[in-house]
Amino acid sequence: MSFTFATPVRFSDIDHAGIVYFPRFFHMFHLAFEELWRARMGPRAYVELLDRDRIGFPAVHARCDFKAPLRFGDTAEIELSVIRLGGTSITFHYRVYRAGEPERTLCADGQVVCAVVDLARFVAVPTPDRVIAILEDLVEPPA
Amino acid sequence: MSFTFATPVRFSDIDHAGIVYFPRFFHMFHLAFEELWRARMGPRAYVELLDRDRIGFPAVHARCDFKAPLRFGDTAEIELSVIRLGGTSITFHYRVYRAGEPERTLCADGQVVCAVVDLARFVAVPTPDRVIAILEDLVEPPA
Amino acid sequence: MSFTFATPVRFSDIDHAGIVYFPRFFHMFHLAFEELWRARMGPRAYVELLDRDRIGFPAVHARCDFKAPLRFGDTAEIELSVIRLGGTSITFHYRVYRAGEPERTLCADGQVVCAVVDLARFVAVPTPDRVIAILEDLVEPPA
Amino acid sequence: MSFTFATPVRFSDIDHAGIVYFPRFFHMFHLAFEELWRARMGPRAYVELLDRDRIGFPAVHARCDFKAPLRFGDTAEIELSVIRLGGTSITFHYRVYRAGEPERTLCADGQVVCAVVDLARFVAVPTPDRVIAILEDLVEPPA
Repeated sequence: MSFTFATPVRFSDIDHAGIVYFPRFFHMFHLAFEELWRARMGPRAYVELLDRDRIGFPAVHARCDFKAPLRFGDTAEIELSVIRLGGTSITFHYRVYRAGEPERTLCADGQVVCAVVDLARFVAVPTPDRVIAILEDLVEPPA
Repeated sequence: MSFTFATPVRFSDIDHAGIVYFPRFFHMFHLAFEELWRARMGPRAYVELLDRDRIGFPAVHARCDFKAPLRFGDTAEIELSVIRLGGTSITFHYRVYRAGEPERTLCADGQVVCAVVDLARFVAVPTPDRVIAILEDLVEPPA
Repeated sequence: MSFTFATPVRFSDIDHAGIVYFPRFFHMFHLAFEELWRARMGPRAYVELLDRDRIGFPAVHARCDFKAPLRFGDTAEIELSVIRLGGTSITFHYRVYRAGEPERTLCADGQVVCAVVDLARFVAVPTPDRVIAILEDLVEPPA
Repeated sequence: MSFTFATPVRFSDIDHAGIVYFPRFFHMFHLAFEELWRARMGPRAYVELLDRDRIGFPAVHARCDFKAPLRFGDTAEIELSVIRLGGTSITFHYRVYRAGEPERTLCADGQVVCAVVDLARFVAVPTPDRVIAILEDLVEPPA
């Protein structure tokens, strides 16, 4: 199972070569992560996790293969699943597709490994149960 | 040998957790790449390569390990070297340090693999001699 | 009559003071403009106007009063109307509200004056009929 | 007297029309403001004002006339002066020039009015002496 967030490529997302500036794909990944929280827990759930509970998910590793360009006028479908839901870190899997008929095109395939940390002290803490509850149906079956 | 570009972390580079938003590190990588062209060939060399010669370097793979956070008020030193200067692709190595005394701190260590393409047709072309000339002293010795 | 586009404030929209970085409000204005085209003409209408017809709307003046801050966790409602639909320029009116109960809060009230130009030559051209058709019901009645 | 910060237009500063995305000009304004603090007080002065003294300068009004486009490959010279150094607010004047020979070109002419606030409570406070000291030689003579 996966979660998908679709968004138009924005007028300002592109670079001088006319394609989506590659760092923006990592931003798209984060948009899908933010939208997952909204969709499952409401608009304030993620900010409360950060501000009240002081739990955050800083990236410790990110990677992406870029397979096809995205351009202004395209619609991006960002698919989020979970490769590993660990005790103190989470590996997210993101795929960005260009929407299209008859088939959409895979443009980017990436992963982000996040630590689970206490933001007040920036040290690792156990993944909260609430976070596990939100993510566990998104864990990919073993390949 | 490497090329270094230093820049302050900007007021708007950070995210709600108060640290540099991780996609911005990939933007920092690109800033160093742009500055390398300026430093070695002048302010218009890179845009002319793109617009007149129609040669570009789209990223086909990017990766980064994030080792320590950067915050507003920090100065980032972005170090660029070349891991592989291939016939139709180039692997760049980027390290971002937080400037400091007595020692700077490694915050991010990443790589970006770029294809060399004809932007008019978006197909691979041989790495131009001029590009090799600019980059060859930055190739890292074998480990 | 007005057109409204709602979007969450993003994790990376804020600055080191913890509020939406003020230049981002002008970006929000543009998002509403892009969404208006999508809503009324489909996902490719605006890019085709730009790329095929070579008509664009560069800003010649922009202004904004900032009345209340927006923060991560807020939902922004961006309202677009038209103050003046001229022969070679258009004055847009944008208001950004923080969604809320029982009432939303006005955070920003701005205007953007755009020229209508031929992008190939960057000279003013008459506002195309199609553009007038999309915008005319959004023209505000005289105050 | 004025303060000038020069920066290349970045690969990602432009939009699909191939010119600097107009909200980025307001970002350029802020870059000059940040660089002024660095130049006059060192790299940590502004962040300490914000974090330790809890003084900030949220924009309450911003405006800009766009007079000529900036493109990738151009160098922007951002000139900062002060129109009004008030007791609880400051009006900054920013002009962005495209560097060039024999003459540079004025691309943007804008103003930003900032309140001086206690960031902890988001209420107006008197402009600190230190801020006056940094800015007073930048106040424009009456026209």
